[in-house]
Amino acid sequence: MHGSLLAKSTDNFIPAKSPRESLRSLITSSDLAFAMEAHDGLSAAIAQRAGFKALWASGLSISSSLGYRDASEASWSEVVDVVERMANVADIPILVDGDSGFGNFNNARLVARKLRQHCASGVCLEDKAFPKMNSFVGDRHPLADVGEFCGRLKAVKDQVPDPEFVLVARIEALIAGHGQDEALVRAHAYAEAGADAILIHSRKSDAEEIFAFTRAWQNRLPVVIVPTKYYRTPVSEYRKAGISTVVWANHNMRAAISAMRQVCDRIIREESIAGIESDVATLDELFDLLKYQELSAAEKRYLPQTENGVR
Amino acid sequence: MHGSLLAKSTDNFIPAKSPRESLRSLITSSDLAFAMEAHDGLSAAIAQRAGFKALWASGLSISSSLGYRDASEASWSEVVDVVERMANVADIPILVDGDSGFGNFNNARLVARKLRQHCASGVCLEDKAFPKMNSFVGDRHPLADVGEFCGRLKAVKDQVPDPEFVLVARIEALIAGHGQDEALVRAHAYAEAGADAILIHSRKSDAEEIFAFTRAWQNRLPVVIVPTKYYRTPVSEYRKAGISTVVWANHNMRAAISAMRQVCDRIIREESIAGIESDVATLDELFDLLKYQELSAAEKRYLPQTENGVR
Amino acid sequence: MHGSLLAKSTDNFIPAKSPRESLRSLITSSDLAFAMEAHDGLSAAIAQRAGFKALWASGLSISSSLGYRDASEASWSEVVDVVERMANVADIPILVDGDSGFGNFNNARLVARKLRQHCASGVCLEDKAFPKMNSFVGDRHPLADVGEFCGRLKAVKDQVPDPEFVLVARIEALIAGHGQDEALVRAHAYAEAGADAILIHSRKSDAEEIFAFTRAWQNRLPVVIVPTKYYRTPVSEYRKAGISTVVWANHNMRAAISAMRQVCDRIIREESIAGIESDVATLDELFDLLKYQELSAAEKRYLPQTENGVR
Amino acid sequence: MHGSLLAKSTDNFIPAKSPRESLRSLITSSDLAFAMEAHDGLSAAIAQRAGFKALWASGLSISSSLGYRDASEASWSEVVDVVERMANVADIPILVDGDSGFGNFNNARLVARKLRQHCASGVCLEDKAFPKMNSFVGDRHPLADVGEFCGRLKAVKDQVPDPEFVLVARIEALIAGHGQDEALVRAHAYAEAGADAILIHSRKSDAEEIFAFTRAWQNRLPVVIVPTKYYRTPVSEYRKAGISTVVWANHNMRAAISAMRQVCDRIIREESIAGIESDVATLDELFDLLKYQELSAAEKRYLPQTENGVR
Repeated sequence: MHGSLLAKSTDNFIPAKSPRESLRSLITSSDLAFAMEAHDGLSAAIAQRAGFKALWASGLSISSSLGYRDASEASWSEVVDVVERMANVADIPILVDGDSGFGNFNNARLVARKLRQHCASGVCLEDKAFPKMNSFVGDRHPLADVGEFCGRLKAVKDQVPDPEFVLVARIEALIAGHGQDEALVRAHAYAEAGADAILIHSRKSDAEEIFAFTRAWQNRLPVVIVPTKYYRTPVSEYRKAGISTVVWANHNMRAAISAMRQVCDRIIREESIAGIESDVATLDELFDLLKYQELSAAEKRYLPQTENGVR
Repeated sequence: MHGSLLAKSTDNFIPAKSPRESLRSLITSSDLAFAMEAHDGLSAAIAQRAGFKALWASGLSISSSLGYRDASEASWSEVVDVVERMANVADIPILVDGDSGFGNFNNARLVARKLRQHCASGVCLEDKAFPKMNSFVGDRHPLADVGEFCGRLKAVKDQVPDPEFVLVARIEALIAGHGQDEALVRAHAYAEAGADAILIHSRKSDAEEIFAFTRAWQNRLPVVIVPTKYYRTPVSEYRKAGISTVVWANHNMRAAISAMRQVCDRIIREESIAGIESDVATLDELFDLLKYQELSAAEKRYLPQTENGVR
Repeated sequence: MHGSLLAKSTDNFIPAKSPRESLRSLITSSDLAFAMEAHDGLSAAIAQRAGFKALWASGLSISSSLGYRDASEASWSEVVDVVERMANVADIPILVDGDSGFGNFNNARLVARKLRQHCASGVCLEDKAFPKMNSFVGDRHPLADVGEFCGRLKAVKDQVPDPEFVLVARIEALIAGHGQDEALVRAHAYAEAGADAILIHSRKSDAEEIFAFTRAWQNRLPVVIVPTKYYRTPVSEYRKAGISTVVWANHNMRAAISAMRQVCDRIIREESIAGIESDVATLDELFDLLKYQELSAAEKRYLPQTENGVR
Repeated sequence: MHGSLLAKSTDNFIPAKSPRESLRSLITSSDLAFAMEAHDGLSAAIAQRAGFKALWASGLSISSSLGYRDASEASWSEVVDVVERMANVADIPILVDGDSGFGNFNNARLVARKLRQHCASGVCLEDKAFPKMNSFVGDRHPLADVGEFCGRLKAVKDQVPDPEFVLVARIEALIAGHGQDEALVRAHAYAEAGADAILIHSRKSDAEEIFAFTRAWQNRLPVVIVPTKYYRTPVSEYRKAGISTVVWANHNMRAAISAMRQVCDRIIREESIAGIESDVATLDELFDLLKYQELSAAEKRYLPQTENGVR
């Protein structure tokens, strides 16, 4: 029995596209995988061109790009639209930061289904309430009830039965100051509820509580981490700890902010763009990135040619 | 070589969903098929519930529902969004009225790709320029150059290589007063360019010019018709003429307009809804149509139950 | 101090348009006012043409039209887009059903600001949590905490200081089975928090609990009612009770459903549109409703004319 | 007589907001003004923070950010949505690059009206056909017929009678290789048709053809320039030539591309973010930019406080 948006029978749920590599393979492989943050079509194209094998559609970065704060201000449909635009330019898999699921189990499964339909390869749900606040801001991060959050996870799995679509359960227990035991209880419950991987989040400046978790967890499910705050820990330690995937969660956006601020400041001060010309990408680099040459070739193929070449 | 939005390699282009029946099968079958107009999620649900096997996402009806005139006022992305909402509630195939393709070959292929991604089963392109005017309005309906329009068709076929996605070429030569010869020349050219079916349009009050066309065309490709103006012709004649598909192109919307006008007029006049209560659908009918019972059942499955039943 | 989306200083907040009449005047006037449900551009045009002085952008009807259930499935930005399309065709004021505000105080004020920006004249917020369930479905309608809901109301008033923008507080206490005392306590608190009017909702088949409320309330603020279930009560009694505004909350949509279902059934059964042609609106009626004649006139004014009339 | 979307009477057309300064004042002032490119909420916030007095919503940059090529791939409604998000975070005026108007006079006036409604302060229309190609790409830039383009300008002025809304007519004659005479004929015609300013575009690496134009034009209307290619010319020469406004048309985006490419390359190579941490903006800078402190303050004001501080 399914409803309105959810009315499709599940047996005919076929992937909308196959990215060149499978997100599931990346996450379950014994090699450490990396996912790079992107927040719009342009940053997705740049990350793919640089060689990343997967994208992280960051809630913080997408919100910021849209001009919202990362506190459930962007609507779920605005986020889905951004993800679709990323999928249109990149053919590496996209793992979407689905916040807490934009409401209850029903909102979570609706959004997951939409993301799947718009070519995302997976979604990450965190065990907070709606609306949420960014994990790096303030100290008020009430956790969702375990049973209620497991309902969200189960609903997503039932709604999107595609085995290639990855559901990552993100644990905020350490962020919220509840300690390892709470984190582990939750990890086991989320695995039971059907999660495909666990994202254990920390905002400490070292990775000790991450490693404490992985030692106890014993890789029952693949582990995903976000070393924004403990950025000094070398990757070799993640490999040693058997971590599956590292998410560089907001660095494209932060690089863009820094560069735009500097360029704006210089242009204001110098009343000129001559000084910054060599610091910014050329238009040709942009045209190459977004494949303008394909359009020229297509014009030759599809537009009638007149005697003097063009009409 | 593909560009930006068009960057996917074509060999991994897999359908986003499989409607229960294939639009291609309906159109190529020797049985006469019918497609019913829908313009939003609600009308799509009603048409499916009534037993129609396919939907026509009418440009006129969608524009009207959005409050636009059928003169290329709605943006292509607004139309795609409507189609997606129709696909979310209906699992019968949707043939989309793609107007003239919203620009040149590049816009046409971009829109076709997006429609495919958003679960449409086919698109119909008409041989006019952008912006267009509704075929029933006025006498200025300049036709597109044949070669240029064939470029649009080829570009769509190359961009959306899915064999299940149906491309219908709509001929406006009779509407524009150019006669049978022009219509046939165009039909042959469009077949050559890759169209899967021909929609021959007429605004005469009888079907004579339609039948003249089908006699000469000899079903080289399946023929689709829109008998909005020649509505008196019995369907048996279409079967005799070997027509593939009849589109009831705007009747859901026109029924809705008439009913809403009458209800508004009565409520204004009577200052009461008591008189019209028995003429309008019950809320229970609506709740059944959009499957509210599935949500109740899902709440039992996914929400934690408290001692006294619910929390 | 203002934030991101909310960054405008309030003293330069000027109305985006002035509907021909003010919603505030309608609601505060001693005459009984009526607001007719609309859910898209077309239904808005029809209701205005019929002579209604205000529109009710119904959450149930808009959700249904989009193919969603009235359980917070439509995103707030999808709802805002619909309201904008209604405002584009109608120049009577629109009171928007803002559900429970789409989250907490921050979501409520963001949505109210957006609605204001997109030409709504007012918003109605109900004292439930997010996600909500339609008031006519089931028995689980937990009320929001009074203080928390007052925070939502205050935040909206602070964010949209335009005195012409009307904030209606909708009380669900009777729906939820809490009785008159709870309803009155809430009404006083909401008035204190800045509401401009009170919508007291009931799903009884007579208006007794409505009148009990109005007798006790003594019109401290104007009262809005939605007699969907108690439709038999004559309007004269509302006038006697000093009620400000009656909302006909879903009758355009229910009329449309009924008419579309009947037309679909007949077309399926009769394999013909000849029988229903006289029951549905003519295309000319549609063209008149959406002012196609303005476009013809504009073409004469703005398009270069060639020797033979048009180019 | 007005139609559908265009149905508002013009005398009640009141600005949706008043940016702190008027775009008209900036453009008509004898001081040289500068407009900085922005393409999303984030870049708009950065440019405003840096001290710019006006924003240029660049078609190239917005397209690129969305993952489209600057060849009329983005739909007009997608562009309007981006502009609205820019206006939500910035309260300096926004001049929107409206391409060629997204179709004929009817599309142009519809888009202009929507931009106005969504808080843009002006629109720039260029004298090309739809779809267009970026002026820096290739040699095929057919100009619009002068009379037809004047129709677009007139339609916009009639549709958006707000005297504060600025209409800039952009001349592509030099880009298309037609020379000064053609440019001047067009400038005079566009002034006659109601343009408020002239943007004379050039892709030469020096500003000679710009100055030739300004000498002949004698500031009949204010002149706007886009020195992307002739970036070496010092601003003092623009002041001497009496130019009104300089648009730094794509430098935020190009700075972002360059920075994101470098950061991606380093992270790939170093398998670490430790090296780039000091090169990218801090999260605190982002939180300050988008005013997270306002949200904290608002939570104290609008959320009920529990005994231990928060609930």
